[in-house]
Amino acid sequence: MQKIINNPQTVVDEMIEGVVKAMPETLSPTKNKRVLKYKNAPQKGRVGIVTGGGSGHKPAFVGYVGKNMVDAVAMGELFSSPPAKMFYDAFVAADGGAGVACLYGNYAGDNMNVKMAIEMAEDDDIVVKTVVANDDVPSAPKDKRETRRGVAGEILMWKVGGAKAAMGADLDGVIAAAQKAIDNTRSMGVGLAPCTIPEVGHPNFTIEPGTMEVGIGHHGEPGIAVKPLATAKEMAKEMVDVIVPDLPFVNGDEVVVLVSGLGSTPLLEQYIFFNNVEEELSARGIKIYKSYVGNYFTSLEMNGITLSLMKLDDELKECIDMECGCMGLTQLPK
Amino acid sequence: MQKIINNPQTVVDEMIEGVVKAMPETLSPTKNKRVLKYKNAPQKGRVGIVTGGGSGHKPAFVGYVGKNMVDAVAMGELFSSPPAKMFYDAFVAADGGAGVACLYGNYAGDNMNVKMAIEMAEDDDIVVKTVVANDDVPSAPKDKRETRRGVAGEILMWKVGGAKAAMGADLDGVIAAAQKAIDNTRSMGVGLAPCTIPEVGHPNFTIEPGTMEVGIGHHGEPGIAVKPLATAKEMAKEMVDVIVPDLPFVNGDEVVVLVSGLGSTPLLEQYIFFNNVEEELSARGIKIYKSYVGNYFTSLEMNGITLSLMKLDDELKECIDMECGCMGLTQLPK
Repeated sequence: MQKIINNPQTVVDEMIEGVVKAMPETLSPTKNKRVLKYKNAPQKGRVGIVTGGGSGHKPAFVGYVGKNMVDAVAMGELFSSPPAKMFYDAFVAADGGAGVACLYGNYAGDNMNVKMAIEMAEDDDIVVKTVVANDDVPSAPKDKRETRRGVAGEILMWKVGGAKAAMGADLDGVIAAAQKAIDNTRSMGVGLAPCTIPEVGHPNFTIEPGTMEVGIGHHGEPGIAVKPLATAKEMAKEMVDVIVPDLPFVNGDEVVVLVSGLGSTPLLEQYIFFNNVEEELSARGIKIYKSYVGNYFTSLEMNGITLSLMKLDDELKECIDMECGCMGLTQLPK
Repeated sequence: MQKIINNPQTVVDEMIEGVVKAMPETLSPTKNKRVLKYKNAPQKGRVGIVTGGGSGHKPAFVGYVGKNMVDAVAMGELFSSPPAKMFYDAFVAADGGAGVACLYGNYAGDNMNVKMAIEMAEDDDIVVKTVVANDDVPSAPKDKRETRRGVAGEILMWKVGGAKAAMGADLDGVIAAAQKAIDNTRSMGVGLAPCTIPEVGHPNFTIEPGTMEVGIGHHGEPGIAVKPLATAKEMAKEMVDVIVPDLPFVNGDEVVVLVSGLGSTPLLEQYIFFNNVEEELSARGIKIYKSYVGNYFTSLEMNGITLSLMKLDDELKECIDMECGCMGLTQLPK
């Protein structure tokens, strides 16, 4: 296990210590060492944005805490949900009196712990409403969309929710925009090599060299097929062919494209893949309004790539265009 | 070879096509398809900043083209210098009449090609001056510092040079600041696993599991020792112990810390390592003014990490603080 760590049991806490020291201009610690907040949160009268989940997906989730993005984050163990108290502490850290939008991914542990945390917050008169991301198309058929997992599309949900809160929308307005963002987003991943959780010491699933797992989840959840390793162009076509009909995205649509490496995928390869995705979308008359290509939502050192598409309308465009600043998704100046 | 590519012979050109499509708000193509420029370059009366080098180090070099950063970049084959004509075309793309600062790394091919390109530019009355980065401490002893390689410290050189040009300094002023930046910077890397060039199809060097190569270059150049794999804390101490005495950095200094993964190193591990670096610097009375932690200068999917430190004065602080915007190093808003 070729890893730069000290103790497999303390990787998350040590990582958080490093994150806090590295970004004092953006992040502040809270009384709960597993909860970090935007240094200017809570902002009085502004809806607070909270997320959380298992660690191991850096820069998600903590990397999306920042200006006009997420206000507080709950950080669980590697690939494990944060307990309810941690979500609750994040609600308290983010609440500026206008309520909290908890925007998170559809996993059993997170659903249970967020629900319990909301009950705890009710006792403090903190109003919390939720949007549950379910953008991962291969994880369930379309008629069971509510059971699909949340993956890299969550980043676009946070971007939209954070921008809407910054514009002064009330809690229902923020929730409606974030819900629209994820309803308009579809994602899919392909895995080429697994990752190893330090405490386990060996990969907890296998991808044979020469093959790829199509539709893999970002915790290594099985995909829809194991196939011979394809070219970037074939992968792009296969993923676009699954994602586009599902919403559907149609000729004339404008979209955000988010390509994320899963950890060890060179950025060089991500741009080659993105180039092929653009060709596939262009051939279908779908226009790219904004692109993100990079390691936005990873799984330790897993090798692979995910594609997320979000269909835009004027409201979503305005949110995507808004200035934001966080380690994971700083907006480029015009 | 688990790679997301189409044709090993065309990875660089396809990557560039993807980069151009992904960032129209920042980058523009030029007549030379291996030269990209900042969309607002050349800027009349402002010194142009040029760099270039072999591809495979994404986001370097093209990722540092942008606002108040690099104006034009020459992109060679994987780990190979761009030919002289490419550097020349980058000079032309960046020249706004105030001359060009070519800020690049100390490799034989780059030295030769930049020199030839400068001769070509002289015929066009384009004045080009250079700074040659040599921040990699383990690559040569201190009394042969001029022979050391340039590595991730180059990013800080570009940041300082770009900021100084944006402030309106003339060519000599930009060159002096960029030279000071690299003179004040020391770097070192540790490798845990090699990378594979697609055209070669297998790793061109070996790092045995359970070992690490201390002082490795980012093309896999041999380091100063192969040792048993250490903890993050031991690695941080070893690297600080090599870097700090070399300048030397002393008690009371303020520094920029730049930690870069080499490609497949999880961000989680990079923050753990950074946490230990901060402890080592703090114990020596060295204060961190600004930190960068991420995949800033990679070598395809190499596993490993580099540490760069830059000693600051007021001029360098002003340059580091200046707003900038490029894919590789967007400044976080205050």
